[in-house]
Amino acid sequence: MKAEIITIGDELLIGQVVDTNSAFIATKLNEAGIHVCQITSVSDNREHIMEALDNAKERADIILMTGGLGPTNDDITKNTLCEYFKVGLRFDAEAYKDVEFVFKIRGREVTEINRKQAEIPENSIALRNKNGTAPGMWFDVNGKVYVSMPGVPYEMKALMEDEVIPRLQKRFTLPIIVHKNVLTIGIGESFLAEKIAAWEASLAKDNIKLAYLPSVGMVRLRLSSSGDDAKILTQKTEKKIEELKTIVGEFIFGYDNDTLEGVIGAMLKERKQTISTAESCTGGYISHLITSIAGSSDYYVGSVITYSYEIKTLELNVSADLLNIKGAVSQEVVEQMASEVRRKFKTDYSIAVSGIAGPSGGTPEKPVGLVWVAIATPERVFSKKFQFANNRLRNIQMTSNAALNLLRKEILADKS
Amino acid sequence: MKAEIITIGDELLIGQVVDTNSAFIATKLNEAGIHVCQITSVSDNREHIMEALDNAKERADIILMTGGLGPTNDDITKNTLCEYFKVGLRFDAEAYKDVEFVFKIRGREVTEINRKQAEIPENSIALRNKNGTAPGMWFDVNGKVYVSMPGVPYEMKALMEDEVIPRLQKRFTLPIIVHKNVLTIGIGESFLAEKIAAWEASLAKDNIKLAYLPSVGMVRLRLSSSGDDAKILTQKTEKKIEELKTIVGEFIFGYDNDTLEGVIGAMLKERKQTISTAESCTGGYISHLITSIAGSSDYYVGSVITYSYEIKTLELNVSADLLNIKGAVSQEVVEQMASEVRRKFKTDYSIAVSGIAGPSGGTPEKPVGLVWVAIATPERVFSKKFQFANNRLRNIQMTSNAALNLLRKEILADKS
Repeated sequence: MKAEIITIGDELLIGQVVDTNSAFIATKLNEAGIHVCQITSVSDNREHIMEALDNAKERADIILMTGGLGPTNDDITKNTLCEYFKVGLRFDAEAYKDVEFVFKIRGREVTEINRKQAEIPENSIALRNKNGTAPGMWFDVNGKVYVSMPGVPYEMKALMEDEVIPRLQKRFTLPIIVHKNVLTIGIGESFLAEKIAAWEASLAKDNIKLAYLPSVGMVRLRLSSSGDDAKILTQKTEKKIEELKTIVGEFIFGYDNDTLEGVIGAMLKERKQTISTAESCTGGYISHLITSIAGSSDYYVGSVITYSYEIKTLELNVSADLLNIKGAVSQEVVEQMASEVRRKFKTDYSIAVSGIAGPSGGTPEKPVGLVWVAIATPERVFSKKFQFANNRLRNIQMTSNAALNLLRKEILADKS
Repeated sequence: MKAEIITIGDELLIGQVVDTNSAFIATKLNEAGIHVCQITSVSDNREHIMEALDNAKERADIILMTGGLGPTNDDITKNTLCEYFKVGLRFDAEAYKDVEFVFKIRGREVTEINRKQAEIPENSIALRNKNGTAPGMWFDVNGKVYVSMPGVPYEMKALMEDEVIPRLQKRFTLPIIVHKNVLTIGIGESFLAEKIAAWEASLAKDNIKLAYLPSVGMVRLRLSSSGDDAKILTQKTEKKIEELKTIVGEFIFGYDNDTLEGVIGAMLKERKQTISTAESCTGGYISHLITSIAGSSDYYVGSVITYSYEIKTLELNVSADLLNIKGAVSQEVVEQMASEVRRKFKTDYSIAVSGIAGPSGGTPEKPVGLVWVAIATPERVFSKKFQFANNRLRNIQMTSNAALNLLRKEILADKS
């Protein structure tokens, strides 16, 4: 079964609003075994909306629209749908109840302009909107389903989950699609592709599709397959992932919605261990990642961010001599930082980083993007040098992910 | 001049990735006086990409594409463009230099698969990608311009700003559009709209359009006008902004690409003053914002992140009694944190925050979203209570922005 999404609104085409609705709708459709072939954003323009509908129905069985259902004059989706289907409007008493309800909780009388929100095209069914005044609308015309939803994300989301997906499941016989994501870090996309080329080629036999989705220092591998039996699809996919682990297991840190900081947090929580950080060039970003996880206070106690030489000495006992001789971006300094914050904060592990985030501040010996990362554990202190590029924010993110990954591997090694 | 955007990638159609590229590209095109009529997302599929190109060229003069330029097999945009334009590939020596550069800073040899990144369709010009291995590609065919860019946002952004927009400005005669953004913080969108209603109504006389762009605790007001004379447009706009300042000046912290942390940094730099932070619930995010500014080492010396009670006592001399009686999220504790980090780190200013980021950890007296922010200055220590909502990451961002704004206003007041 094929679907297309049409998002309607001038704000999308001037770049004022990022279209997050499409990704949500696409996720829900895919989970339901419906393949999305195109997402189209058009302005609040009659001809253009109708043209988009004409094109979409050539390719798809299901056309989901969002936007353009507000009570003001710039919202024209409803009237355009009447014109498109050559029908008039009818007043829907059920939809009006929701309009009344929304005004009641706001403590106001329904205005005339909002009474019109309960008028829908004659050939449509109203889908209840618990969160706003514009009902969703469901059209079943010549074997194709068209749905119009408001563009306000939380109104659309409730409509999708409570009304649209259940109705589509009743209306069509849908296949099952299984997606599984494998998250890797520490290996570039092309090196990864080389390493797993034979494995990748073997996926075709099981009708599994593979996609590479790179982000800062990470590559997400997505395996997708479709069929009739979720259990069999899942088993086939998991078998392939087991094979993958034997090839590039050292680079795999998680699956699906895992994050590096979440995976580390879960390990520390399970082991009842704690962590602290001493950051220079990352300026608190590693701490931010760690504390972005709810419940991180169970294992994260604190950090020092030592941007200046003086604070490195004051807080982490890094000797002024060492700083002057070796420089702040050096193995000796970063290892001292890691040891000292671990000792002082009495944690099991610590991370320390020092580097040149850029864009300025580099020298021929120590160019922008040079970073030292140290990890202190109950057993040892060790460090690793990295060379990133010239973009400050990206260097901060790359350093943070590299440091967290170094820690993750060390915690894992401590297990054995 | 009309443009269309085509974003290519299976990950968009299964909802795994939100298409943020389109909004960025649309913003840049609009700023350059180019009207975007449609945004289309299609999968990594030959026929579908070509169909999207065929449809787009019927409506637009400029077609910008992102995605599908990676070195792996699932990326097919480049070969599809060859097929579409009926041309072969040629090796581009300039583009190869960028591939070599990327590998060199990673300290690695260029692999065969990546050497191919420098091959581009014969009828295209390579656009330099400083941040990755896939060059942008510029096609000028039958009076229409087609551009293909990588889907990685920071690679695409640099290409748009450094290459695509300047080339479009040369290639076409574009109308002049003047945009000016006024950045406000500390006032909600609807309150702001009420306060400036009369001023907003007066904009029509000068043919200036206004848009409200809200983000975390901030509202960006964008004034836009178009015409033939940039100077006149700019003067009219600036006059209106001067009027606006007299109405809501206290909420305005900057213009256009300013950031709160950048504005504060510039003030501190100019005054040769310094800052430190003591963070609890923000977990390093305030430090991250401050240090995201290049050159922040001129005024930022460091921070302590005191997530646990023990570290608040150890690092910031907060007495255990005070913590037990008043709790970590209290005026007394946060003011002590601010004073102590300022004293210890010998800075002119300091920020301290303590709160309940959530989603759990709230009590009836201290609900999730409750935050205390303190500022210490050479003259005084003061604090303010905030009540945010239930979303952890949003609470961290809202707290950080509120704290930075409190500091900004205090630094400004110290001037007078």
